Amino acid sequence: MQLNETHDPGLRSWVPSANAQDADFPVQNLPFAAFRMKGEAAFRIGVAIGDAIVDLSHPGVAMLLEPQIAEACRASTLNDLMALGPAAWSRGRLNLSRALRAGNAQADRVGAALLPQAGAEYRLPARIGDYSDFYTSIFHASAVGRLMRPDQPLLPNYKWIPIAYHGRASSVCVSDSEISRPIGQIRVPGADAPAVAASQRLDYEVELGVFIGVGNVRGQPIPIRDAWKHVFGVVLLNDWSARDIQAWEYQPLGPFLSKSFATTVSPWAVTAEALLPFRGPWLRAADDPQPLPYLQDLAERSSGALDIVLEASIQTAAMRAKKLAPVRLSRTSSRHAYWTIAQMVTHHTSNGCNLRTGDLLGTGTQSGPTPGEAGSLLELTVGGREPLAVSSGESRTFLEDGDEVCLRGVCEREGFARIGLGTAIGRVLPVHAPQ
Amino acid sequence: MQLNETHDPGLRSWVPSANAQDADFPVQNLPFAAFRMKGEAAFRIGVAIGDAIVDLSHPGVAMLLEPQIAEACRASTLNDLMALGPAAWSRGRLNLSRALRAGNAQADRVGAALLPQAGAEYRLPARIGDYSDFYTSIFHASAVGRLMRPDQPLLPNYKWIPIAYHGRASSVCVSDSEISRPIGQIRVPGADAPAVAASQRLDYEVELGVFIGVGNVRGQPIPIRDAWKHVFGVVLLNDWSARDIQAWEYQPLGPFLSKSFATTVSPWAVTAEALLPFRGPWLRAADDPQPLPYLQDLAERSSGALDIVLEASIQTAAMRAKKLAPVRLSRTSSRHAYWTIAQMVTHHTSNGCNLRTGDLLGTGTQSGPTPGEAGSLLELTVGGREPLAVSSGESRTFLEDGDEVCLRGVCEREGFARIGLGTAIGRVLPVHAPQ
Repeated sequence: MQLNETHDPGLRSWVPSANAQDADFPVQNLPFAAFRMKGEAAFRIGVAIGDAIVDLSHPGVAMLLEPQIAEACRASTLNDLMALGPAAWSRGRLNLSRALRAGNAQADRVGAALLPQAGAEYRLPARIGDYSDFYTSIFHASAVGRLMRPDQPLLPNYKWIPIAYHGRASSVCVSDSEISRPIGQIRVPGADAPAVAASQRLDYEVELGVFIGVGNVRGQPIPIRDAWKHVFGVVLLNDWSARDIQAWEYQPLGPFLSKSFATTVSPWAVTAEALLPFRGPWLRAADDPQPLPYLQDLAERSSGALDIVLEASIQTAAMRAKKLAPVRLSRTSSRHAYWTIAQMVTHHTSNGCNLRTGDLLGTGTQSGPTPGEAGSLLELTVGGREPLAVSSGESRTFLEDGDEVCLRGVCEREGFARIGLGTAIGRVLPVHAPQ
Repeated sequence: MQLNETHDPGLRSWVPSANAQDADFPVQNLPFAAFRMKGEAAFRIGVAIGDAIVDLSHPGVAMLLEPQIAEACRASTLNDLMALGPAAWSRGRLNLSRALRAGNAQADRVGAALLPQAGAEYRLPARIGDYSDFYTSIFHASAVGRLMRPDQPLLPNYKWIPIAYHGRASSVCVSDSEISRPIGQIRVPGADAPAVAASQRLDYEVELGVFIGVGNVRGQPIPIRDAWKHVFGVVLLNDWSARDIQAWEYQPLGPFLSKSFATTVSPWAVTAEALLPFRGPWLRAADDPQPLPYLQDLAERSSGALDIVLEASIQTAAMRAKKLAPVRLSRTSSRHAYWTIAQMVTHHTSNGCNLRTGDLLGTGTQSGPTPGEAGSLLELTVGGREPLAVSSGESRTFLEDGDEVCLRGVCEREGFARIGLGTAIGRVLPVHAPQ
């Protein structure tokens, strides 16, 4: 994968909104989603351009694409396109880029396939086979570790092995899906026995989600030099977490119901190719151990990290009533991750485990080195001990009913067009049923 | 769900092999699988009877079934049938039971749909959405706990909460699939750093797998009184485990690559209805805490436990060369489980997590109270410290290349026909690739 004409910062689109300074979806981005217009039954595949969607099932667009790619784009999720592999993705992206550039002679034909994002609704970009969640931020791992083990915040394995757990695929949902507060077994500190109650320590986690394009055969690991070829694209991911349920259930097999009630992802999968200009050297201190050989690669060392600026904001019910804008909770970059996306892919398959098209890998909470860069309330409020002021008169330790959490991701680099990931939004509703 | 004419121990089949004393698949069983005959491309659905398979896609059989059920049985996995729900499963089973009984007038027509199991091969019974693995044996949890925490073998949460972790669905495979020894990061005790090596502590785990028939909507938990209605059937499950990889990776988020290289299940899903006669009171000592209300149910208390006798046997490469029969490693019953299948289902959904048709729940290693009832080598060899003699001249601490592990499950109770689960077999092959 290398920079090509689609990355040219001078490109402009004949779709005016794509040329705005703060557009998430300029012609250099071209992310993919599964969408339908409100009131429609069936979902289609589209590409975002400015505030519009190019309907890839439209005959006027399909004829611009290679037949195999056009056929894959007539599906209702991205799985078929994902399965075609990086060369096909790149060729299709080039065709779409050319068709959407200012001055393109086919603008009229493609224009007939444009739909407004404002009238669209989304489903998950792909049918997700398995969802695995990593723990790539050393700052998050250390902060959580300090709360639980002040004497040994970082476990001895952290700098050697990309820690991860299997997540729950069934409850991954797209932005704007309802998030009911979970109930579960909770043992209040000092109590003899647990009780069943609504979670009082409901949290969000700012993550990236990585969609696997082409999988691997069981028993055939993916070498790190090939790992990026298996990555279709990236979304925002909010790994909602019930800290009180987690504290009681997680020994000895890890988090289960504290995570599996819901995981929210943004609808637009930003392709690995579009993100290419925003890669840089991986994080590793001089006295850290070098990654073991299977996680080592010269190219990856110099360009494995991905600089996506990630923001979380909150709008409470009271703020909505007063028409107050959401306020930012934190801002960091995924470049602070200790383990890269390629290392996640390679480690995951190193035992022979097979990834499949549409599988989702989470990066784990992305936190940076300073306090304002923490990607969860658990960290921002020091385990709930230091409430955070969120607006006039309100503060939070953990999430309350009515709170809406919005994640955003943006890539900016001198000499390149700004690339946005859109938003992943979820509003906390009361518990799902009377107890 | 209640006993009905299909459970009558006096029933005999016109398929002679189904009437043998030691048949796994008498006419009282009627388990479902996805199969094809060797050399065929497409898979079909079948029901086992003695040493034969009734091809449910055969027109002569389809006409015995309700149209909706016949349609579901024309698929290539059981998902469509599973989605129809317990009333339909029961009616379909009754029709098949009648058609296969001795003296049935339609025997000739059904006979045309019979195929020999000896010529068949299988795939997974269902497309599995998510796989979750529980930890329901208190004897297993205590034995493993003794190895890791001699001062506190059983963690404080064990008797309150059915512990589980999300597993890996992609690498669940059907009996007879190849099991390559995994490689991974291993830190030898006392070493400063881990190294990448083939697992030297490869183990099996004797479990039951539970296939979910009808799922639930996200946010709507399944009450315990309804839990069994969501269970289509049960298979044998071998949760292959690399103990040395697990020991290094599992803190703080639980097992990951130590489990995800392969999980083997038996091909025949034995229906919850067929297993009805083998249910009994759940295990709970007088001084144990009572389950919390959401895990309590009078019927479940008296009939939640499932008495399936589970055996693991091994045949090494040397034994095969000498034509020595496999030897038994352990024998126990799933009735010793501390948490029941209904409690697994209800707990899993108690936070609002949605189960889907075809989801697989593992029970976790089933071990009984005595040493010979331990369902893993980790327990049988006390963490690898006490080698186990397996045949003339050979012993094992953990599995070696060429070892074939076979799980069997059988239900027997005075006054009822014997019901078998068949076998789940896997042979350990050398590591998948040069390192």
